[in-house]
Amino acid sequence: VTFAQRLEALCRQRASHLCIGLDPVPESLPPSVLTCDDPVFAFNRAIVDATLDITPVYKPNLAFYEALGAAGWTSLRRTIEYVDGRAIVLGDAKRGDVGETARAYARALFGTLGLDACTLNPYIGRDSIEPFFAYPGRGIFVVCHTSNPSAGEIQEQAVDGEPLYLRVARLVGEWDRDGQCGLVVGATYPAELRAVRAMAPRLPLLVPGVGAQGGDARAAAAAARPGTFVVNSSRGVIYASAGRDFAATARAAAVALRDALGAPTA
Amino acid sequence: VTFAQRLEALCRQRASHLCIGLDPVPESLPPSVLTCDDPVFAFNRAIVDATLDITPVYKPNLAFYEALGAAGWTSLRRTIEYVDGRAIVLGDAKRGDVGETARAYARALFGTLGLDACTLNPYIGRDSIEPFFAYPGRGIFVVCHTSNPSAGEIQEQAVDGEPLYLRVARLVGEWDRDGQCGLVVGATYPAELRAVRAMAPRLPLLVPGVGAQGGDARAAAAAARPGTFVVNSSRGVIYASAGRDFAATARAAAVALRDALGAPTA
Repeated sequence: VTFAQRLEALCRQRASHLCIGLDPVPESLPPSVLTCDDPVFAFNRAIVDATLDITPVYKPNLAFYEALGAAGWTSLRRTIEYVDGRAIVLGDAKRGDVGETARAYARALFGTLGLDACTLNPYIGRDSIEPFFAYPGRGIFVVCHTSNPSAGEIQEQAVDGEPLYLRVARLVGEWDRDGQCGLVVGATYPAELRAVRAMAPRLPLLVPGVGAQGGDARAAAAAARPGTFVVNSSRGVIYASAGRDFAATARAAAVALRDALGAPTA
Repeated sequence: VTFAQRLEALCRQRASHLCIGLDPVPESLPPSVLTCDDPVFAFNRAIVDATLDITPVYKPNLAFYEALGAAGWTSLRRTIEYVDGRAIVLGDAKRGDVGETARAYARALFGTLGLDACTLNPYIGRDSIEPFFAYPGRGIFVVCHTSNPSAGEIQEQAVDGEPLYLRVARLVGEWDRDGQCGLVVGATYPAELRAVRAMAPRLPLLVPGVGAQGGDARAAAAAARPGTFVVNSSRGVIYASAGRDFAATARAAAVALRDALGAPTA
């Protein structure tokens, strides 16, 4: 079973294109978890428990754990161990480096942390992606078109009459081995998302940027079809409430987003 | 004093363009440090003690610490604290993300870890760099042209008749605020390094890729002049010997590289 097949099967089994971003911000955590030994892990565990049956992918963004220092890495490791194959844990890392360093990043993300998948940056080219293929069955989502206002500054520059992000989509299709590769395309650019889907019909897509960033969930799902994809929401789901009911409220927000995205079609 | 001025003053004071990469690989550490409580920190401390008088910049690459998990982050934090303003500690992180996440990375690198400078990836555009300006006096080296064989795949693509890496050099010059920005350009591409220097005469350059990666130190220094720059060597210096004399041998390798690079000119 390739990574792409595993992701597709999980989406079908849970009738969901949902990806929940696990981005711990100390000021935003519910007071009720702050007394726990490891508040970040306790929070993540409660969110996972409340949403697992409708969530094929969880996406911790490494930045939020790194901001907490060594303790953050321990919380992240515990979160990955807790999910333990019951969903895909996709580490949003956006790493990219050369040679020995790229091998060290692959070891850090897939070996030490034990992630099922990660995001990588394409600027350095194939050399920076290659070492991640040494971990069969793990997913590699390459950043293609991001959700931020200045995304076009470099990504939309025309290269031989083709915007760079589409060249990246094409290159990643060529680099892919055994269904390991996917692409990251922001929900805030639905036309560009549609163009990427047309260029790379078989690659799984990770679509961030709905909710707080302003992307429209329905439009994003329509642009990402047909094919395998998940749409991520972080703050809009996990911080829907800071009260004692935070997990139930997060589930309600997750259900609403899942319904907006629709189920995988036959 | 801006970051660029601080870097230039340190290079002049130490008559050196040397940057030493602190990239811990367990299998390469000298047996004599393995019995220490924190072998990675003990190794880094010995290298720093042996080279500080001729080294304006140390460059830990975060990948090698992340591969060691939470313990690696602690070793890195201790190394940064140990240098404590006596040289610039430049974290080679090549991060890049949007909005809140970019702010979390800036907090992680400049706040939690306490680095003097870091490397960032340009693919996401100005939004991913901007949050790092909130830390005055810290340096931001944006990846421009890397040292690896496939560097050209994206970086050398022509955009309006200009290769992308030169557009990045120009953009970073425009983004710069208060002398915080610099560029990363690999030593294995001396002609491209010269073109970047011509495009961005006032930006400090970080030049990796001599030694194990095959770049020529003298040619790199010639291409980076005139202006502020440091040339990095990691394995060629720190793993020059695995014997009990490892620190003295690292110093000898550092002196040889410093001499090959020459001193800052008036």
